[in-house]
Amino acid sequence: MKALITTVPFANKNILPLEVLDASGIDYLINPLNKKLNENELSEMISDFDILIAGTEPITSKVLDAAPKLKMISRVGIGLDSVDLLSTKKRGIRVSYTPDAPAPAVAELTMGLIFSLLRSIHVSNSQLHKGEWNRIFGKRLAEVTIGVIGVGRIGSRVIRRTKPFGTPRILVNDINPAVHSDLDFKLEWVSKQQIYEDADIICIHLPLTKHTFNMITKKELLTMKKDAAIINVSRGGIINENDLFEVLKSGHLSGAAIDVFENEPYSGKLTEIERCILTAHMGSMSIDCRTRMEIEATEEVVRFCLNKTLVNEVPQEEYEVQSTKI
Amino acid sequence: MKALITTVPFANKNILPLEVLDASGIDYLINPLNKKLNENELSEMISDFDILIAGTEPITSKVLDAAPKLKMISRVGIGLDSVDLLSTKKRGIRVSYTPDAPAPAVAELTMGLIFSLLRSIHVSNSQLHKGEWNRIFGKRLAEVTIGVIGVGRIGSRVIRRTKPFGTPRILVNDINPAVHSDLDFKLEWVSKQQIYEDADIICIHLPLTKHTFNMITKKELLTMKKDAAIINVSRGGIINENDLFEVLKSGHLSGAAIDVFENEPYSGKLTEIERCILTAHMGSMSIDCRTRMEIEATEEVVRFCLNKTLVNEVPQEEYEVQSTKI
Repeated sequence: MKALITTVPFANKNILPLEVLDASGIDYLINPLNKKLNENELSEMISDFDILIAGTEPITSKVLDAAPKLKMISRVGIGLDSVDLLSTKKRGIRVSYTPDAPAPAVAELTMGLIFSLLRSIHVSNSQLHKGEWNRIFGKRLAEVTIGVIGVGRIGSRVIRRTKPFGTPRILVNDINPAVHSDLDFKLEWVSKQQIYEDADIICIHLPLTKHTFNMITKKELLTMKKDAAIINVSRGGIINENDLFEVLKSGHLSGAAIDVFENEPYSGKLTEIERCILTAHMGSMSIDCRTRMEIEATEEVVRFCLNKTLVNEVPQEEYEVQSTKI
Repeated sequence: MKALITTVPFANKNILPLEVLDASGIDYLINPLNKKLNENELSEMISDFDILIAGTEPITSKVLDAAPKLKMISRVGIGLDSVDLLSTKKRGIRVSYTPDAPAPAVAELTMGLIFSLLRSIHVSNSQLHKGEWNRIFGKRLAEVTIGVIGVGRIGSRVIRRTKPFGTPRILVNDINPAVHSDLDFKLEWVSKQQIYEDADIICIHLPLTKHTFNMITKKELLTMKKDAAIINVSRGGIINENDLFEVLKSGHLSGAAIDVFENEPYSGKLTEIERCILTAHMGSMSIDCRTRMEIEATEEVVRFCLNKTLVNEVPQEEYEVQSTKI
């Protein structure tokens, strides 16, 4: 069996995933372009491989047409927006992912972004590095209302981490509230609209689907309070980037923190906005979580090669999200 | 009675402190230069005033010589390094402060700086705003050893906030460990030297005294791990700024976060270091804490004018810190 590893960096801090492949006699190639591949690059690279250990590059039907030998995709991460699951299913290609491993790291990055936004750390840092000294007022978590859209593995962790700081109101919204009601303190389950209107800090922890694409446009951003701030560490495209740029440019919102973009690497207009924190899709990039993701994805590949039961195969509802209009 | 208010901004987000003064018939002037005063500026401004509502500007014997009417100083904040307590005592000038009010805001800023340093939020933000995309590996709090030097009101809060994130080791040092042993989980009381050697993130929460001035020089910084980071939100001068610059420039330490400087506004060489977070003495600058500090300081002034007992008069040990060599 031959595996193509497209996600980079891979085994950068811990060599174990490669040792696991070696020990199982699986040949592998790590993405020689050392960057996120586009559809054409992946199509050209994939033809000879049985297995894909994938990042977030587009795995479309065009790519699959160029991959006649492909039998299994092991996604290093949780998001499946990049994988055309209906096409993989049609071709009998099995797909696994690592849904739990990234959550702690993404939740902690979110906490860091919340504090940066609340206290303008990024603005003061940028100003001081340019020689400007302004003492900027901020707020503590105990003074603000937090809104979390998407209360899954990551959103619920953010809520649990926020609570000890004394946040008086936590507004939450999820497509299926019942599933995620294991948090042992008072949450206010409300509409997205009410979160837009009432929250001071709004955190997006959603998958990218046809229902969440461009969920937040100029209309929703202008519904938010003038001094609210928004954080997206989930997937690019959920907040319309041009609309966010225009709204921030106009002076609305106190800030934003964006870790994920429609096109990565990002080099768009948000780079002009000092109070918009930009990070390079680093949500899962803690050494421990990244290592766990890589090991889980690799062990799943080994199970596939040994004809063992897969433990993280993508569940049926993920296929339904892509196939239905629900 | 006439009060000079030197600390700025003052009553910027909440007018109550001025209303308290008005209601008590106390005349006041807010620092017309709208910046931290130096010794000469304060000396020229203070001559006609009975009361000083003070920030961190130097209240030296020279200043006091120019203030023949001065009877009381009410410090908006906790640090007393700026006040020559021996000179005020000699002149019978009473001094109060607000030791508790700033702590929650300073502790939360510290948490924000810890997360920024752990995940390189500041570096990625700076790079992306320049058009550079690098996915930088970080660590979670559960992966690192935290060292806290100074376990008083602020240090103990930082420890309590850190613990829920799963930090496995918290190393602590304080001149008087017994006083601060009310934290209900395991701490390792160690020497400062061991903190320098073992901690991944080192937080300084000390007053500036002759014993802490230049406590951390090149020698101590080079004792730290190559990828350690240091945070100072207490007082400038405790870490030697030139030494920190040289050590960072040489590639040692993964980062630093400095909110306080020997001379403020700061415009020194640390501005050249991208991985050094610089903020403009904003530790106490949350709206709620700042308002509480101003109200407490103002109410103490009213008590003084009405000959009531002061509730936040500076205790004897603060005078001893400045007068002895202990």
